[in-house]
Amino acid sequence: MRIGVLTGGGDCPGLNAVIRAVVRKGVGVYGHEFVGFRDGWKGPLENITMPLGIADVRGILPRGGTILGSSRTNPFKVEDSASGASGIDRIRENLAANSVDALIAIGGEDTLGVATRLHELGVHVIGVPKTIDNDLNATDFTFGFDTAVNIAMEAIDRLHTTAESHHRALIVEVMGRHAGWIALHAGMAGGANVILIPEQPFSLDRVCAYVESRFESHYAPILVVAEGATPDGGEAAVLEKGLDAFGHVRLGGIGEWLAAQIEQRTGKEARTTVLGHIQRGGTPSAFDRVLATRFGLNAVDAAHDGDWGKMVALRGTDIVRVPLAEATTELKIVDPNRYAEAEVFFG
Amino acid sequence: MRIGVLTGGGDCPGLNAVIRAVVRKGVGVYGHEFVGFRDGWKGPLENITMPLGIADVRGILPRGGTILGSSRTNPFKVEDSASGASGIDRIRENLAANSVDALIAIGGEDTLGVATRLHELGVHVIGVPKTIDNDLNATDFTFGFDTAVNIAMEAIDRLHTTAESHHRALIVEVMGRHAGWIALHAGMAGGANVILIPEQPFSLDRVCAYVESRFESHYAPILVVAEGATPDGGEAAVLEKGLDAFGHVRLGGIGEWLAAQIEQRTGKEARTTVLGHIQRGGTPSAFDRVLATRFGLNAVDAAHDGDWGKMVALRGTDIVRVPLAEATTELKIVDPNRYAEAEVFFG
Amino acid sequence: MRIGVLTGGGDCPGLNAVIRAVVRKGVGVYGHEFVGFRDGWKGPLENITMPLGIADVRGILPRGGTILGSSRTNPFKVEDSASGASGIDRIRENLAANSVDALIAIGGEDTLGVATRLHELGVHVIGVPKTIDNDLNATDFTFGFDTAVNIAMEAIDRLHTTAESHHRALIVEVMGRHAGWIALHAGMAGGANVILIPEQPFSLDRVCAYVESRFESHYAPILVVAEGATPDGGEAAVLEKGLDAFGHVRLGGIGEWLAAQIEQRTGKEARTTVLGHIQRGGTPSAFDRVLATRFGLNAVDAAHDGDWGKMVALRGTDIVRVPLAEATTELKIVDPNRYAEAEVFFG
Amino acid sequence: MRIGVLTGGGDCPGLNAVIRAVVRKGVGVYGHEFVGFRDGWKGPLENITMPLGIADVRGILPRGGTILGSSRTNPFKVEDSASGASGIDRIRENLAANSVDALIAIGGEDTLGVATRLHELGVHVIGVPKTIDNDLNATDFTFGFDTAVNIAMEAIDRLHTTAESHHRALIVEVMGRHAGWIALHAGMAGGANVILIPEQPFSLDRVCAYVESRFESHYAPILVVAEGATPDGGEAAVLEKGLDAFGHVRLGGIGEWLAAQIEQRTGKEARTTVLGHIQRGGTPSAFDRVLATRFGLNAVDAAHDGDWGKMVALRGTDIVRVPLAEATTELKIVDPNRYAEAEVFFG
Repeated sequence: MRIGVLTGGGDCPGLNAVIRAVVRKGVGVYGHEFVGFRDGWKGPLENITMPLGIADVRGILPRGGTILGSSRTNPFKVEDSASGASGIDRIRENLAANSVDALIAIGGEDTLGVATRLHELGVHVIGVPKTIDNDLNATDFTFGFDTAVNIAMEAIDRLHTTAESHHRALIVEVMGRHAGWIALHAGMAGGANVILIPEQPFSLDRVCAYVESRFESHYAPILVVAEGATPDGGEAAVLEKGLDAFGHVRLGGIGEWLAAQIEQRTGKEARTTVLGHIQRGGTPSAFDRVLATRFGLNAVDAAHDGDWGKMVALRGTDIVRVPLAEATTELKIVDPNRYAEAEVFFG
Repeated sequence: MRIGVLTGGGDCPGLNAVIRAVVRKGVGVYGHEFVGFRDGWKGPLENITMPLGIADVRGILPRGGTILGSSRTNPFKVEDSASGASGIDRIRENLAANSVDALIAIGGEDTLGVATRLHELGVHVIGVPKTIDNDLNATDFTFGFDTAVNIAMEAIDRLHTTAESHHRALIVEVMGRHAGWIALHAGMAGGANVILIPEQPFSLDRVCAYVESRFESHYAPILVVAEGATPDGGEAAVLEKGLDAFGHVRLGGIGEWLAAQIEQRTGKEARTTVLGHIQRGGTPSAFDRVLATRFGLNAVDAAHDGDWGKMVALRGTDIVRVPLAEATTELKIVDPNRYAEAEVFFG
Repeated sequence: MRIGVLTGGGDCPGLNAVIRAVVRKGVGVYGHEFVGFRDGWKGPLENITMPLGIADVRGILPRGGTILGSSRTNPFKVEDSASGASGIDRIRENLAANSVDALIAIGGEDTLGVATRLHELGVHVIGVPKTIDNDLNATDFTFGFDTAVNIAMEAIDRLHTTAESHHRALIVEVMGRHAGWIALHAGMAGGANVILIPEQPFSLDRVCAYVESRFESHYAPILVVAEGATPDGGEAAVLEKGLDAFGHVRLGGIGEWLAAQIEQRTGKEARTTVLGHIQRGGTPSAFDRVLATRFGLNAVDAAHDGDWGKMVALRGTDIVRVPLAEATTELKIVDPNRYAEAEVFFG
Repeated sequence: MRIGVLTGGGDCPGLNAVIRAVVRKGVGVYGHEFVGFRDGWKGPLENITMPLGIADVRGILPRGGTILGSSRTNPFKVEDSASGASGIDRIRENLAANSVDALIAIGGEDTLGVATRLHELGVHVIGVPKTIDNDLNATDFTFGFDTAVNIAMEAIDRLHTTAESHHRALIVEVMGRHAGWIALHAGMAGGANVILIPEQPFSLDRVCAYVESRFESHYAPILVVAEGATPDGGEAAVLEKGLDAFGHVRLGGIGEWLAAQIEQRTGKEARTTVLGHIQRGGTPSAFDRVLATRFGLNAVDAAHDGDWGKMVALRGTDIVRVPLAEATTELKIVDPNRYAEAEVFFG
């Protein structure tokens, strides 16, 4: 069998571990051949390929990024070619041109949405879920999340030592546009005094009350805020207009907005650390490497079995297969009970 | 309610996170009081206590070790006191003397075995499982394991760069006397060329064949060996006598024994890194801090609910309660299927 | 002899290592006594002390922050007391009230400026230099700097992996208001494509040219910018007014301003990571712990020798003593030759 | 100019940073060409080369190991070829065959000894010093040392947390056959209770006294021992025979020998961690990356200047050039004053 592999969407530590496992088992155990499509769906769309043999995956296990490159190219959103071929048409043509019998697509909601559509059109597809936000309902965890949480936690750990000497509120803005898992886990692991997530619009009054009560205990408060967190009520309206605390167009994110609000309301200084892309980079944690490796092994097993249209997933300690369509049905958001666990440590 | 807390057995990153969560929720939400018993069962046996309030648990979340101290004291194995009181008798007396209504015992098989017996005698006990080896059947994971795996993986990562320049077999000896989980996960995460675990007696011939085939590819082999791994057949008999490769009394562990054997059989140099206690120390990973914190929260909930004789456990992403007796029934050893996953990458 | 110790100014990894070394050698070898003054000059000003014996410094070597607390209180800037005593008067009174024969002051330009003045007034003072920015001319290095550089370098390392997959300019804003040492070293160690420091006003045109040339090589550019870096010419004027790229009042720092400018001029997305206080926190690196320990040992030697009015300093691999006044004379800025070394790697 | 580059001897974090800096400045600024000789002196001896252009050094800055490979091949110790050509003859022939005008040799005492001899024979040679042990008199520091010290320090940090709960002496064996710099710096940075180095033969009685006094303070002692440390007096004679504490042939190193001795003499358990090759691997610290980069820049400057027979060195914060011969004259061992600094913290 000749199998194509691609990685789509944003970076996520563990992508290379998946690719390596697919190739090592696919070639070494099953004797299949592999071809890499570059830059997500752009690869099969524009027929950009790279060799993908045992030698090509040597040494990539500990590395962040993806040797296949990635992109957010969506074949549904590209224009038809001069000859009238749609994006999907051209992908099917290029798969055929490369004598590819099957495709292993590693990516998030968008990437797997395209994979699902291709499966419905009869293409042999296996999916591997990838979301650093861990917001996919079909699997207990996705790789990359644990690494991101560790990076954010280490930042919070470092702030704690300065928090003991200083007299400023310290804010850490972490990833999480729609789901607050990174903020929740990093904040719980780091001992944050407040955690703000998109699922729970926050009251500025309550946040400022925590900040002030923390200062009274002679420790500076540490606040972890997901980039998608929003205030409730009237404040939300202001924020939505993209204005800062002074009514000007806002450049910074929610972390900086929150710092300005806290300074205005409490009279205390506030400082923001914006972790940004460093949460997506670097070497994966052991948890993510093991999970990504097992996902890769099971995905190539699925291809070998001809179990098309499936996505691999973690349930407890087992790797299972679920219909690809499940990947895109429902966002896994933070359960109120999980948030309540963290609230025990607020203030 | 007045609740005693103790930690028993070997060190494990996350113990302080459990203690902190128990006290923060127990005092802050439920209004209970806590007393710390020092050094495992030695504390209630000899009535050695310490205060355990909100201030005592401040700042301990990221710290390894346990503020309560630990020991391997087993009250079943101590002599009766002058007045004829058994170890268990004295524990019950001292719990009463401290007006303790319930006990939260954090520990491994031995510690929870005593807890189980106390429960059978009517003492109000809740257990929190602790084994760095992750070899407890009743829970998907125990805290400390993820940290140990990351430490071992980082050591393997470092060896890889020297393996590319050198011409020596490199052996890493990791913890795991009866179960090879640390070796399996660290070896898989680190890209080891061979992983040897107690569950699968190894063939020296096969190990040496892997070593030699790896050298042929111009990379030095990296072998991960659990301290409890043993050779099969006749070699095992030699090893059991505590003799080294030359028939002398053996000081070193299996890692060093293996190095001597490989040198003798392949004519290549071999070097051993013995990680030892560094796997048990240092700050816990995010995974372990979150797990330990959730165990602590649920344990104090169980005490508040009067759900005695239970142990908290992880199932998927949920914290559940199981009978304490389950903690000590069966060792969770590495499943042959999990070992087969790793074998894909051998050689 | 009875010696007071205080730490002033911003946090800096290694402060506790200095304190520990002072006390361990002072008590253990010389038999002196120590008293801690809390929160910088606020301690002797308001007579806030803490015990400082061998037991008090146990376990603090690896910890960030300072067990003595810190502040930016400047005794020259406080009002006279009701009885007409100046800040300096009150410090001298409180030193006498505590039977303190000498003072070891650990701090930066401000803290050591006060120490110098006290020395001129006859108080027995020894100084230990502390500046995370490494901008003190009298010493080759100050502790804390190496730790900060490593933290910033690790962030850059992480960005590199995402830079290979993404198509955005990535900016890291690091500390350095007047001197660009952290940016220079972290940028050189991390392989940044552009490094911007306060000593060298930058041309936005040139920065954008680097950004565009880097994109042409299919890698996203990584820019390291010291918080005190400024554009040259007309752009500087705009920035000085505190306006953002759209002419609005600017909330964010230079990193964010630069991102907005790059987006405007090159049409490429740009993202900023603001490391902020995490550069000051956490456990010190080995270099900083050894340097801080040796500073502490030599400082207490100087006190024992009665070598008053001196500050300890690193010259090559030796710890030497220089007049306290040197600490505050001249800022050590980045030499153009050192910047030229780094420019080799720009673009 | 066409310049050959080689790396010889044991692994050392920073080698790739040197290579990258040489090529980036040599090609980008001076327009020279480079050729890589593989596996140390084996490369020019057997004419094994690899291309060495800008593209070949991309991304190698943070990586341990060396892209050129290394070996301990010594051209003085190889047999003459069939045609009677000595090793040195063949190196000169192969340099000529590759049209190489000059050679940059990166290595330790052995590698630079060959370089010195070639220089005396008229070959255009520049040396870059490399010794992880930091035992070269001509330079304040060599790259790789800081990384090794940090790795050893982190191991000691981890042991401290378990030392607080356990009742065993914990020994860390680190590199340093002839010079104890790694043990000294790591032990000082990690807060070891005893540091044993080759320069100072140790008294077992004194070591055991420290161990016992430490146990009395309820903390387990942590001992750092350089692999080349030896006991004084009669014990040394036993150790030299390669016998263990029981008179058997010794497999393990000094760390294990010491553990057996301590157990025998104090009746306390002792455990050894042998760090081994992990001290040589992994990503270099910021200090080492900056130093290695500056060494590389200055080495290619020296070649461009035709300043042959020189070696680059660090003096204070400056990179200077010294005669190559200095590299091999005298070992830089630990000064008694530096050891005395550390002894303050023993026990």
